[in-house]
Amino acid sequence: MKTADAIGANADELHALVEKFFAATFTTDNPIVTEAIKRMLAAGGKRLRPRITLLAAQACGGRALEHLHLAAYMELIHVATLIHDDVVDNAATRRGVNATAVDYGNRVSVLAGDYLFAWIFKNVTFNYPAPIPNLLSATLADICDGEVLQLAALRNLDLPLAAYVEIARKKTASLFAVSAQCGAIMGGGQSHEVTALHRFGEAFGVAFQMKDDLLDMTADERSLGKPAANDLGERKTTLPLIAALAAGNGGFRAQVRHFYDADENDAIPAIVDGIEREGGLAATRAQIDRFADQAKAALEPIAQGAAKRELIKLTEALQS
Amino acid sequence: MKTADAIGANADELHALVEKFFAATFTTDNPIVTEAIKRMLAAGGKRLRPRITLLAAQACGGRALEHLHLAAYMELIHVATLIHDDVVDNAATRRGVNATAVDYGNRVSVLAGDYLFAWIFKNVTFNYPAPIPNLLSATLADICDGEVLQLAALRNLDLPLAAYVEIARKKTASLFAVSAQCGAIMGGGQSHEVTALHRFGEAFGVAFQMKDDLLDMTADERSLGKPAANDLGERKTTLPLIAALAAGNGGFRAQVRHFYDADENDAIPAIVDGIEREGGLAATRAQIDRFADQAKAALEPIAQGAAKRELIKLTEALQS
Repeated sequence: MKTADAIGANADELHALVEKFFAATFTTDNPIVTEAIKRMLAAGGKRLRPRITLLAAQACGGRALEHLHLAAYMELIHVATLIHDDVVDNAATRRGVNATAVDYGNRVSVLAGDYLFAWIFKNVTFNYPAPIPNLLSATLADICDGEVLQLAALRNLDLPLAAYVEIARKKTASLFAVSAQCGAIMGGGQSHEVTALHRFGEAFGVAFQMKDDLLDMTADERSLGKPAANDLGERKTTLPLIAALAAGNGGFRAQVRHFYDADENDAIPAIVDGIEREGGLAATRAQIDRFADQAKAALEPIAQGAAKRELIKLTEALQS
Repeated sequence: MKTADAIGANADELHALVEKFFAATFTTDNPIVTEAIKRMLAAGGKRLRPRITLLAAQACGGRALEHLHLAAYMELIHVATLIHDDVVDNAATRRGVNATAVDYGNRVSVLAGDYLFAWIFKNVTFNYPAPIPNLLSATLADICDGEVLQLAALRNLDLPLAAYVEIARKKTASLFAVSAQCGAIMGGGQSHEVTALHRFGEAFGVAFQMKDDLLDMTADERSLGKPAANDLGERKTTLPLIAALAAGNGGFRAQVRHFYDADENDAIPAIVDGIEREGGLAATRAQIDRFADQAKAALEPIAQGAAKRELIKLTEALQS
């Protein structure tokens, strides 16, 4: 039989713990909102953010079982932003199930997301010491800031790589960074461990966003749970395209310019072929490697052990 | 020359203080969001919530000038919910006028509101002691809860008075209550003063919502800044209608039933006439009096003085 310390030391066990918590424990005071959130949770997901919180706590000597609520809040912040994204992107499906906005209308999506943010902060401000509540609200501000920057960058074919990374840092990596950081703090980590895990989460999060943008180009609709090359459809300039354009082929640039200016999406397969031909996918994989290596290097001050090994395994999964 | 204590003791001075703060001091880290919020603030408003915060602080012996930020957060929570209401109530896509401009507007509205909530909580968790951050997030949860209840009650002709009051309490009175309560706490109020001002704010807020619903029926489009009888147009069952139906005229009920089931609004003037004839407006004024009197009675434990007199004056303005 496993001791409490050993529970959740591997990824499957942590995933099961988080799922069990959502299924058995999670509820809000509002039945309509609870239903909307449970459906979003039931649609699945890798629960990477809570798993990173629990692993960070364990890496600092804490016990996973004691930090399930904190870990759940990280996933719920993510879920609330997804509910609002459904309004933002007017998306018909998310993860293959009907989006909240489609099922209940935009009104309920906005309110369900707002209620969830409020519910999280109500619990966090009541149950957690400084600086946890401040870190979480600062992260939510970062996420929104990143999304606004991304919105402003739509249809911009000349988005610099640095601007893309800045958007990824804010809209995605910020929450991974704070998931690791808060796990480390509540797990009793020392200052240098908390800093190391924050750095790990941030670099991991940038690599994660790059992988997400790569898969958008390379995976099919079924495995994505959304239309393939959805980013191109929305004229969102992501790393594969930025890297392909950087190769300097004037003909390809003209082709993409024409695609961006036109309002139909028939040319998407040809654009994806062009991105591959110009080396955009390979260059994206190289950038993922770079940030994944940064993430692993950030863990250097963390003591060897099962939790650290799992964090490295999660990172290497992005490089495969 | 006035002393610092005396500044802001009357309503005009407090209003000017709050306006000056918004014009000169307010900014967020995101220029697009700041612009959206400043435009919403420039559209006007009575700034009742921050004025109540400052008056509550003064009523407990505090100085208005020291609590301008706290007061501003109360108005900004209100502004963030208004920004999200624009999404919630946006009917353009439902009418089939699908336009990119509408989608773009929705995107920015959702993100600007989210950013503003996050920005407020980031500041409040950093700068204010318990229980202020928890009170504000609990209030935001109440507001959303009330809005969801209101949404669920749309087209319900049999909404009980108690359910209407519960919605008003959550979606409107909760923020007035916490505006007064937080002002009292930060102004150094004793426990019985904090409780009294919380009660004042809640009763004031219910009366305020009732007055708002009355004006929706009685004022013209120009003074409202929105279509007259907008609530009827949205099939929102508010107090004047509930009270008119309670008079028991079966013919009037049948007329309203027909109006609710039909999807056009030509009958609105006749419904408003019927509400007046059945005593719905008079009964609403009586309920406003009842809650306004409760609000004034709640102030009984508060020492006499300029701040208390102003709170009573604000309440009596609802009764005029």
